[in-house]
Amino acid sequence: MALKTRIETAIAAAIASAQGGAAPPRLASALDYAVNPGGARIRPTICMSVAMACGDTNPAMSDAAATAIELIHCASLVHDDMPCFDNADIRRGKPTVHRAYGEPLALLTGDTLIVAAFEVLARAAGSDPDRAVSLIRILGESTGMPGGICAGQGWESESKIDLSAYHRAKTGALFTAATRMGAAAAGEEPDAWTELGARIGEAFQVADDLRDALYDEVALGKPAHQDEINGRPNAVAQLGVKGAIRRLEDILSGAIASIPSCPGEAALCDMVRKTAERLTPVVPAQQTA
Amino acid sequence: MALKTRIETAIAAAIASAQGGAAPPRLASALDYAVNPGGARIRPTICMSVAMACGDTNPAMSDAAATAIELIHCASLVHDDMPCFDNADIRRGKPTVHRAYGEPLALLTGDTLIVAAFEVLARAAGSDPDRAVSLIRILGESTGMPGGICAGQGWESESKIDLSAYHRAKTGALFTAATRMGAAAAGEEPDAWTELGARIGEAFQVADDLRDALYDEVALGKPAHQDEINGRPNAVAQLGVKGAIRRLEDILSGAIASIPSCPGEAALCDMVRKTAERLTPVVPAQQTA
Repeated sequence: MALKTRIETAIAAAIASAQGGAAPPRLASALDYAVNPGGARIRPTICMSVAMACGDTNPAMSDAAATAIELIHCASLVHDDMPCFDNADIRRGKPTVHRAYGEPLALLTGDTLIVAAFEVLARAAGSDPDRAVSLIRILGESTGMPGGICAGQGWESESKIDLSAYHRAKTGALFTAATRMGAAAAGEEPDAWTELGARIGEAFQVADDLRDALYDEVALGKPAHQDEINGRPNAVAQLGVKGAIRRLEDILSGAIASIPSCPGEAALCDMVRKTAERLTPVVPAQQTA
Repeated sequence: MALKTRIETAIAAAIASAQGGAAPPRLASALDYAVNPGGARIRPTICMSVAMACGDTNPAMSDAAATAIELIHCASLVHDDMPCFDNADIRRGKPTVHRAYGEPLALLTGDTLIVAAFEVLARAAGSDPDRAVSLIRILGESTGMPGGICAGQGWESESKIDLSAYHRAKTGALFTAATRMGAAAAGEEPDAWTELGARIGEAFQVADDLRDALYDEVALGKPAHQDEINGRPNAVAQLGVKGAIRRLEDILSGAIASIPSCPGEAALCDMVRKTAERLTPVVPAQQTA
């Protein structure tokens, strides 16, 4: 099965499981709306690629790990889009969940997706509960406090921001979760894989900054120039467009260099290179000067 | 250690763990504010009482189970109080989290507490990961979709409510979680304990309806007469005050009769009776007619 199909199948199964039984229909519908059609599925692709590079010794566990990360990512988008945060009207080219279903169901959709992420891991435990517990611990650390994406978002409510902790938590946490959980799902020690995730996360942040600065709302599928409008730190403001693109290339070279020796090393390097290409924005001619 | 102290110690440890490291200080503070000082801690008391009745064979696991349920309960209070749901100003006699810390941090506090609940169970896995996974599965089912408290809250956004599914999910789910997780934490089969939790949950719902109808805001520590104001189904409206109190007594007799044979059966019956006394409102004289 192609990687993309495998990921979509696993995500669809998790959503179907949350929709089963006597579920309230609108919340059931909102769960699907929040997760499909997906974005690039970058985090689960990284997770699954690492699991495969490590031998994919428990495919159901790899599926669960990739799904759990994507569900948490989607939950964070739904909650971050809400009026008390970004008050965003569009996401992935369609109305945000709170615009389509109202705020109460958007709040519950995020909550439910968080719960579903942990459930999918617990259900995959089978005969290897130690591996499932290890994945649940990594997911918890990457999502909650003190260092997960909740903490990252929490920094935005502080008058004095610890910028390094902020970026590590807000963007980095789910990328390190992706590489660490991919390795752990295949029974490998996750720590050796933290750097790869951290560097991909850093690259993603720079690429996102570039896109936010260079693209318009139509190309982004969400409001543009939000960093400038909200006075958020941005690599383009610090380094200029060319400098930010060079920085992105440097980070990705470092990411490839950090990959631990493993059976599928070559294929994984290839995946990181492809991710890099997808991340690097096409810069409009007048802005490269 | 007295039961109450044991529960508070376990909850405090979970919050301290979420506050550790380089956490954003206001979110860290909001986590504590949302959980302390607690209410009656009814759910963790039930959970721990069942675990003890079953022999409390893994005390760290019992502590984790009781804590996880209370963290989920507190998360649900924080989110339910928010402007898009009840828009409540006070809870447990003090400003609600969104009034004290603002909506963004209230949203994140709920999210973080949900994550912390799963983390505390995963951290307790130790040499018995199967037991931890079983607890995580029960907690997930009781919290998310299709039958947990998120589903219960979701029913309030439907034009046609499945009343039985609504009550089972909205109030019942965390009470059945309490008895089932108490049993599972002690290594017992949880299914035999579902009925006890369901009946306590039903009793709690009737008691809550009575208090909502009979007490004022000062006595409740939260806005009164919300069922009448919001047109929600209420046992007092259906049965009258006396009828509702009789119904409460019947349910609790059934709860005691449902307790499976176990080493600490007598003490557990006693706990349920005490819970019943605490639940039954003191009815002002003019309203008993």
